[in-house]
Amino acid sequence: MTITVAVAGATGYAGGEILRLLVGHPRFLDGTLEIGALTGNSNAGQSAADVLPHIPQLADRVIDETTVEVLGKHDVVFLGLPHGFSAEIGAALPESTLVLDCAADFRLRNAEDWTAYYGSDHAGHWPYGIPEMPGHREEIRSARRIAIPGCFPTGATLAALPAADRSLVDPSFSVVSVTGVSGAGKKANVDLLGAETMGSVKAYNTAGKHRHTPEMVQNLSEVTDENVSVSFTPVLAPMPRGILSTVTAPLRDDVTEEQARAAYEDFYAGEPFVRLLPEGRQPQTQHIVGTNMCLMQVEVDEGAGVLLSTSVIDNLTKGTGGAAVQCMNLALGFDETDGLPLAAVAP
Amino acid sequence: MTITVAVAGATGYAGGEILRLLVGHPRFLDGTLEIGALTGNSNAGQSAADVLPHIPQLADRVIDETTVEVLGKHDVVFLGLPHGFSAEIGAALPESTLVLDCAADFRLRNAEDWTAYYGSDHAGHWPYGIPEMPGHREEIRSARRIAIPGCFPTGATLAALPAADRSLVDPSFSVVSVTGVSGAGKKANVDLLGAETMGSVKAYNTAGKHRHTPEMVQNLSEVTDENVSVSFTPVLAPMPRGILSTVTAPLRDDVTEEQARAAYEDFYAGEPFVRLLPEGRQPQTQHIVGTNMCLMQVEVDEGAGVLLSTSVIDNLTKGTGGAAVQCMNLALGFDETDGLPLAAVAP
Amino acid sequence: MTITVAVAGATGYAGGEILRLLVGHPRFLDGTLEIGALTGNSNAGQSAADVLPHIPQLADRVIDETTVEVLGKHDVVFLGLPHGFSAEIGAALPESTLVLDCAADFRLRNAEDWTAYYGSDHAGHWPYGIPEMPGHREEIRSARRIAIPGCFPTGATLAALPAADRSLVDPSFSVVSVTGVSGAGKKANVDLLGAETMGSVKAYNTAGKHRHTPEMVQNLSEVTDENVSVSFTPVLAPMPRGILSTVTAPLRDDVTEEQARAAYEDFYAGEPFVRLLPEGRQPQTQHIVGTNMCLMQVEVDEGAGVLLSTSVIDNLTKGTGGAAVQCMNLALGFDETDGLPLAAVAP
Amino acid sequence: MTITVAVAGATGYAGGEILRLLVGHPRFLDGTLEIGALTGNSNAGQSAADVLPHIPQLADRVIDETTVEVLGKHDVVFLGLPHGFSAEIGAALPESTLVLDCAADFRLRNAEDWTAYYGSDHAGHWPYGIPEMPGHREEIRSARRIAIPGCFPTGATLAALPAADRSLVDPSFSVVSVTGVSGAGKKANVDLLGAETMGSVKAYNTAGKHRHTPEMVQNLSEVTDENVSVSFTPVLAPMPRGILSTVTAPLRDDVTEEQARAAYEDFYAGEPFVRLLPEGRQPQTQHIVGTNMCLMQVEVDEGAGVLLSTSVIDNLTKGTGGAAVQCMNLALGFDETDGLPLAAVAP
Repeated sequence: MTITVAVAGATGYAGGEILRLLVGHPRFLDGTLEIGALTGNSNAGQSAADVLPHIPQLADRVIDETTVEVLGKHDVVFLGLPHGFSAEIGAALPESTLVLDCAADFRLRNAEDWTAYYGSDHAGHWPYGIPEMPGHREEIRSARRIAIPGCFPTGATLAALPAADRSLVDPSFSVVSVTGVSGAGKKANVDLLGAETMGSVKAYNTAGKHRHTPEMVQNLSEVTDENVSVSFTPVLAPMPRGILSTVTAPLRDDVTEEQARAAYEDFYAGEPFVRLLPEGRQPQTQHIVGTNMCLMQVEVDEGAGVLLSTSVIDNLTKGTGGAAVQCMNLALGFDETDGLPLAAVAP
Repeated sequence: MTITVAVAGATGYAGGEILRLLVGHPRFLDGTLEIGALTGNSNAGQSAADVLPHIPQLADRVIDETTVEVLGKHDVVFLGLPHGFSAEIGAALPESTLVLDCAADFRLRNAEDWTAYYGSDHAGHWPYGIPEMPGHREEIRSARRIAIPGCFPTGATLAALPAADRSLVDPSFSVVSVTGVSGAGKKANVDLLGAETMGSVKAYNTAGKHRHTPEMVQNLSEVTDENVSVSFTPVLAPMPRGILSTVTAPLRDDVTEEQARAAYEDFYAGEPFVRLLPEGRQPQTQHIVGTNMCLMQVEVDEGAGVLLSTSVIDNLTKGTGGAAVQCMNLALGFDETDGLPLAAVAP
Repeated sequence: MTITVAVAGATGYAGGEILRLLVGHPRFLDGTLEIGALTGNSNAGQSAADVLPHIPQLADRVIDETTVEVLGKHDVVFLGLPHGFSAEIGAALPESTLVLDCAADFRLRNAEDWTAYYGSDHAGHWPYGIPEMPGHREEIRSARRIAIPGCFPTGATLAALPAADRSLVDPSFSVVSVTGVSGAGKKANVDLLGAETMGSVKAYNTAGKHRHTPEMVQNLSEVTDENVSVSFTPVLAPMPRGILSTVTAPLRDDVTEEQARAAYEDFYAGEPFVRLLPEGRQPQTQHIVGTNMCLMQVEVDEGAGVLLSTSVIDNLTKGTGGAAVQCMNLALGFDETDGLPLAAVAP
Repeated sequence: MTITVAVAGATGYAGGEILRLLVGHPRFLDGTLEIGALTGNSNAGQSAADVLPHIPQLADRVIDETTVEVLGKHDVVFLGLPHGFSAEIGAALPESTLVLDCAADFRLRNAEDWTAYYGSDHAGHWPYGIPEMPGHREEIRSARRIAIPGCFPTGATLAALPAADRSLVDPSFSVVSVTGVSGAGKKANVDLLGAETMGSVKAYNTAGKHRHTPEMVQNLSEVTDENVSVSFTPVLAPMPRGILSTVTAPLRDDVTEEQARAAYEDFYAGEPFVRLLPEGRQPQTQHIVGTNMCLMQVEVDEGAGVLLSTSVIDNLTKGTGGAAVQCMNLALGFDETDGLPLAAVAP
């Protein structure tokens, strides 16, 4: 039986990435999955040949309006919409529909955090789509509603989680994440022009102001009873894709680098998309572009008394669209890795 | 029965791209193809985890020496070697081995052209791997030796071929091709440092000095009896991958843009990897990164009296490794498009 | 006596570049020039510390409205405004004011060309600000109204002019110009986002559609009685600044490379901002970033029967703001090179 | 009386930057300074037109060998040499010569630190060239030997110094610095090719391994009696120039953002090259490219209990060549800001 899939916000970066992955998905190629409506309000009525020029397989499609009526006819709906609108559409879809929401609306458990950071009422909390977090894979398998994580929280959580879980550090994390410009989305904005972003880096939404901060605290708090704090500094770098997260925290007294490596290896044993690099090598974003991989490294800095872990992900793949497809695979009972590239387009 | 494949020069950009495509190839995933030796002289003995960090599927492999003995045990051998060395290895492999050579040695028919541009003796001429050229697909299907084209000739030939074939222009072509920096290969070179190439463009090997010039003349001469000339200006641009070729030639008197479009549409009808864009849109390299596609446009400039055609390809995919896999597919009787991405990693 | 200078459109890229040059100008540093009003409509009322963060010398200034009243109080007015608005303001300023217009309004002599390319009525023609063109330096010295050339016409004209003037070629030029993204200006536009322009090149406004085409024809026609044609293909490249122009034209029979070099050397003898590179070297945009220089090369391609000349300029300096300051220097009787950097910020 | 200046390592990035600044220096333009020998071993005998193409003023010079004999004839010698060689040449020059060393040899006070990080014997300690550090400006004024700081220590020290000096934090600093690729110098290296560095970021020499770490500890220890620790993570980003340093440290209990801003403003009051941005704005490297400026911001992150300070400098200007010229100005009694751009080449 054919499973129909719709993508709302198909002409944005998240939607486009989901579609890139779907057209190469083995269950799409064998006819199990069928790509139905592609929606996008400002582009409604336009040809996909014009607005998705990088996906020739869809060139004869036309963009639909994003409405519950259009989307509700499908078995699976990916939402790549602004928060608020996403909550509205998500709430209105049939309960039986598998909904994967790439916006922030259903990520946070705590209604006060939501209101503090987003200034509106809390829409609720859905199962949270990092299958590599303890207990999450099972929850996702049986869910019909899944909140796809933010790109920064994914990279930072994967880098910091074993350190928090195995008590390698005091859970006061300093996270600096360097991101490519596609993370800001496909909206006209003078500050994000090529001329403003090429050849230049800057930090932004610093000192606790970035909305992904409470999401990181929430994730790390799942594996420790101690009070978690996160100082988060996002940095915009001149590249289209990729996030490098550097995470430091005060080392617990007796932890050696060997123990730290062993803890990380053990924590992620069997994970198809996480890989601790050999000693002495740092991960590079180029090596995961277009893939669902997270490459990482962990080191002990004895002089400074800190644990340093670093991770790289593609913000649009493992950070958004790839995570969404990974969760869909789990929820539909497919192989978790179906349609998710492991080998990067490098250089 | 399993078909074994070796890649010589596996740690270079061409070899790495061939491997990226092979690990996602459906005939590899179903066990028909088996990846055997990965060779590379300066990296022999090193772990693929270190030298191919973007291909986690091969992380437990070790790089072998590039020798006839190692390579000769395989059914299919891809050569990503310097010219000269490639000719030597290519000549020594068993006749029954399918050899796909990414170097220049066997591309040119004319021995004098070879010596003029490469300064050594001509090694010979093999079937030339642009299946989209008239008669080539059939020749490639039955070949055991295939010369994979240069990246610039692929982009320029695809853009200019219908114009020459259908006599839309006087065959005096002016080709300016803007390329990403991976085209220069993975060799230590001060002029190719990031600091020298970022934020900067320059032309190089201008005024007939680039070795790909006679290859373009040869290709275009296959479809016309007239004397073909090509003024070729390669330009190095600050991006990892991609080639944009702009081709102009004097318009024949009575040719309209409608006729030109029709000729291009007709010439490439049914080609899976070539796509003429809708009127009014120019191809952009971002939209073909990581794919085997060639997007193109053709226009009539009445004021200047010229035909302008433009094309974009990924220099490492359709320009090298993708063309090699496409030719392997034909020679092994697979579906021509197997393992060759159509949808690009964009943005 | 102090000469007061206003800059209209001070927060755009042209205006910002003019101000960068003025704050380092020796006649500003010795008090001869005084920077008066900085105007900009959408930014009126904002602090220059916010909208011109790269010019700390002006941090305590506030942006004014762009009105004739504000601007008319100054001795010198630079206009970095959209065309149309520029013509309106330019026409209303006192005759005695030295007006340097960076928009297109007064560049074209031919009213039909104007209307064909801009779709409005022709505002007129002012002395044209390429001092290196025969007769122009003298005209600029005595002018109170100067039309600053387009960035593409400056690079292409300087590269092609000696060839046309000395009859080295048939004047049917094929010009491909690769430009940085600042050339498109500081306007919110999805197509110019960093994510859309990094790692990617594309041609645009091709086949005679770019508005700089008739300006090139006009310039080259000044030095030859023959019919000039220009096929112009602009290409957008992932860098903030710089234009590389490649120019080819059919070589006249008896012209050698030695003669061509001699003609270029002779044509530009004594020019402070134009430099023919040593044989065998191609100009690179990095080497002129932030300067008023034009580096160039000329070669004969015997195989293709064409002359190839290439030039690089900084589109915001020699291509706009530097040209404007150079013309101001001439019109005010200063040293022509005052305040105009020769040495580039490279790498 | 004319003061003669030599630049050793003139064809490297540090040397080239010093020369770019010297040719625009008012004391060079008025004849007080004279540029003498330009030396560089691998380039000795080559024309500056070939190896310094971005400085047309020096096009007729020839590169000399780097010897004590050549350099010793000058009043001022800038050393842009590898460490070790720099110490050797520096020790052999006449005592009366003003020597400004851009290598690391004479930066560290502690011989054990030197040996631990550089593996050789300590050459000694010279006055250290950050005039903005308490007491340093006076020391530099009377010095004939000056150690120019590392680029990372300059950015991090300027960002962290007031926090350490005014006891705003516990001096356990976490520094993540994102640098452009010119910081790695002009040496052939596969890992620094454009194809390896464009579109990609990575950390390197992490967890205390970077040689600039003890220099940061040394600098911050000058203003506090407490034990200083620095966790330093350098990150390589795809841009030619610029360093963004992000610095966090545990906030002392009663410190407010207002107090922190006041402390920073007070600490740098009157400094010509340091500027605290208005509240709410983060510094961007684009706004200091080519200048000797350091733009910074300081914030209190109450949620995480840390102080965050950020700074941007141009690694080749304030980070190397500009600092060297600033120190020369002080040591020769010139105006400290002579020849040092404040306004950036942006965008």
